[in-house]
Amino acid sequence: MKKDVKFNISCPMPELDYDVITLGHGSGGKLTHHLLDTGVFEILDNEYLATRHDGALLNIDGPVAFSTDSFVISPLFFPGGNIGDLAVNGTVNDLAMCGAHPQFISLGFILEEGLDVRELWEIIYTIKLAAEHSGVKVVTGDTKVVEKGKGDKIFINTTGIGKLHQKGKIDPQRVMAGDKIIVSGSIANHGICIMSKREGLEFETEIKSDTRDVSGLTTALLDRFGEKIKLFRDPTRGGVATVLNEIAGQVNTGVELKEEDLPVATQVDAACEMLGLDPLYVANEGIFLAFVDGKVADEAVEILRSMEGGEEASLLGEVVENHPGKVVIQSVIGGRRVIPMLPGDQLPRIC
Amino acid sequence: MKKDVKFNISCPMPELDYDVITLGHGSGGKLTHHLLDTGVFEILDNEYLATRHDGALLNIDGPVAFSTDSFVISPLFFPGGNIGDLAVNGTVNDLAMCGAHPQFISLGFILEEGLDVRELWEIIYTIKLAAEHSGVKVVTGDTKVVEKGKGDKIFINTTGIGKLHQKGKIDPQRVMAGDKIIVSGSIANHGICIMSKREGLEFETEIKSDTRDVSGLTTALLDRFGEKIKLFRDPTRGGVATVLNEIAGQVNTGVELKEEDLPVATQVDAACEMLGLDPLYVANEGIFLAFVDGKVADEAVEILRSMEGGEEASLLGEVVENHPGKVVIQSVIGGRRVIPMLPGDQLPRIC
Repeated sequence: MKKDVKFNISCPMPELDYDVITLGHGSGGKLTHHLLDTGVFEILDNEYLATRHDGALLNIDGPVAFSTDSFVISPLFFPGGNIGDLAVNGTVNDLAMCGAHPQFISLGFILEEGLDVRELWEIIYTIKLAAEHSGVKVVTGDTKVVEKGKGDKIFINTTGIGKLHQKGKIDPQRVMAGDKIIVSGSIANHGICIMSKREGLEFETEIKSDTRDVSGLTTALLDRFGEKIKLFRDPTRGGVATVLNEIAGQVNTGVELKEEDLPVATQVDAACEMLGLDPLYVANEGIFLAFVDGKVADEAVEILRSMEGGEEASLLGEVVENHPGKVVIQSVIGGRRVIPMLPGDQLPRIC
Repeated sequence: MKKDVKFNISCPMPELDYDVITLGHGSGGKLTHHLLDTGVFEILDNEYLATRHDGALLNIDGPVAFSTDSFVISPLFFPGGNIGDLAVNGTVNDLAMCGAHPQFISLGFILEEGLDVRELWEIIYTIKLAAEHSGVKVVTGDTKVVEKGKGDKIFINTTGIGKLHQKGKIDPQRVMAGDKIIVSGSIANHGICIMSKREGLEFETEIKSDTRDVSGLTTALLDRFGEKIKLFRDPTRGGVATVLNEIAGQVNTGVELKEEDLPVATQVDAACEMLGLDPLYVANEGIFLAFVDGKVADEAVEILRSMEGGEEASLLGEVVENHPGKVVIQSVIGGRRVIPMLPGDQLPRIC
C-alpha cells in the first residue's frame, strides 16, 4: 500500500478496484459482499465468521458478562493506536471490569460515504491484532454506510461476552470504609494525547494514548485475592474523578485522595496545565481502578507492577466513613477540597 | 408532551430542563448521568440495568446465537414504526434466523448534537414496547454524542444473545434440491414505505413498514418440524433476490421461482412500478424465508397462516439441481430469466 504518515502501522493491502467507500457498500448487495469478502472476512478470518450467517453460534456455559460500547473518536488515528484497537480494548476492558475473561466480540461499522478504503483496511487490521492480543474472537458483524456529511468517516460498535472469573465477586455494594483504591497506571494519557493531536501541540516526547487490554491484570488480581477485590472500574470518559464520584454516591461512603499520590507523567501534567485541564477529569483507556480490601492493597500493587501494563500501578486513595457521597483531595500543602463529578463536557469524542 | 405529527405514539414525558441533546450528554459526566437517570434507566428499567455497571451479568447455559446490527434509517419515524422498534426487531429477528429464542440485547446510541430530546424519548419508549413484546431484556447500553453535522440525529446498535432451539439444526449446508422455500408474508413493504415517505408519495391506503418480531413464527416451525427446517433468512437489505442468490451461491444449487407466486400487495406493486423498483430487491423487515424439507412445506405454510404476523405466508419457490448458483424466475407468460444479486445500491439507509 501507499505510505501515508497518518497510518501508524502498515497492513497488507489487497488489490482493489475501488478507493473509497460508496453508499452501495452498505446496500446489502453485491458491493457489500465484495467489501466483506475482500476485507473484513479475509483479515478477521475465523471459524465463526466463516459460516456467513446472521449471527454466530457460541457454546457458553455458566455466568457471563455482556457489554457494549460505541466508538466515535476523532481523529481516527493517534499516537499509540487508532479507533480499531480502541474499540477492541474498550469492550474487552468493560468485560474485565465486570470480573470476566473476554471471549467473543461483535463488530458494527457505520461508514461515511467517501471514506478512504485504506483507512478502513488499516483499522480492520488493527482490530485483528488487538483481538489476537486479547484472545477474543470477532464472531459476528454488520456494516452500514451513510451519505457524506451524515457521519464522520467511521464509527464502531463492539459488544462483548466474557466468562465470569470463578473466584470473583465484583459488586459495588461490597465497597466499604477501609478499602483501598489502586490505580493500575498513570492517568490522563489518552485524553491529553487526543487533545494535543487535535490542537496540534507538540512536546519533547510524544504523548501516547494508553489504549491497552487490562484483562490480564484484573484476572491476576482475582486469581490471587478472589473476593478481597470488591470492584473494578475503568476511568474512561469523565476520568478518575467521575468514577470515584459514581462509586461514592452509589455506596454512600466517602473517598479520600492525596494530591501527591496522583500518578501523572511530567509531560502530561505540563500539557494539562497548558490546556487548562485537571488530569482527574481527563479520559483514560488503558488503566483501571481497583477497590480492594485494605489488607491486600500493598501486595496487589506489587503484583500489578510486576506485569506488563501495570508497571506504574500505585495506591490512589481510600474509602472512608466521613463525608459520604463525596470525593475529597488533600493538596500537597495540606488544604482539602471536594472533587465533584464532571459537570458538563470536557473533551468531546474522546473515545 | 407537546403533540407533534411526526411521532407515531405518545410516551410519558418527564419534566426536563433541556430540549436538545448537547455534546455534554456524551461526556460521561453529570449530564450523561442525568440523561440516563431521567430517560434510559427510567423507561427501560429492569434488574440488569439497575446495577449500573460497565456490563450486565447473565446466566447462560448451553449454546447461544449472538448477533449485531446497526440502524441508520432515514427518516427516523415512518408509517408502522420508528428506528427504535426497528432496532429491537432487527436483532431479535437475526437471532431467530439462527434458530434461537432471543433473550438479551444491548443498546448503543450515537446521538447528534441538537437532537430534539422528545424524539429520543419517543424512540426509547418504542424500544421498551418492542422489547416487552418480544420478551427480550435490554441489559446494557452506551450513549455517545457527536457534533452537529457529524451524524444524523440518531444511530442505534443492538446486539443480542438468544438460546438455540433444542430441536433446531439451522445450517445452509443442509439445503438441497427438493427443499421448498416459504416466505412468511408479502414482500417489499418496508422499503416501499420508506421510499414513499422520502419521496413524499401518497397512496389511497398508507403503505406501512412490516417491522415486527418473527421469532414466534420461527419457534413454532422448529417446535413442529425440528431438523426438517433447514434454514431461515430474513430478506432485509438487498431483498429476497439477494438472499436467494447468497444461498444458491453458498450451497451451489439452483433456485426456481414463479412470478405468479410472488406475494406483493397491490398498492406496493403499484408503487414499485411508479418508482421503477423490482420488489424482489426491495428491503423487508418483518418477513423471513424458510428453506424446508419439501414434504412439510404445505403444513408449514398452514401453521404460519394461523399465527399473528404469518397470515400471508406462502410457497415462494424451490431448490433445484439445475443451474447451480443461479436464481431463475418464470414469468406469468412463461418466459424465464435469471435474477442476479443486487449489483449496487438501491435504497440507501433503509434500516
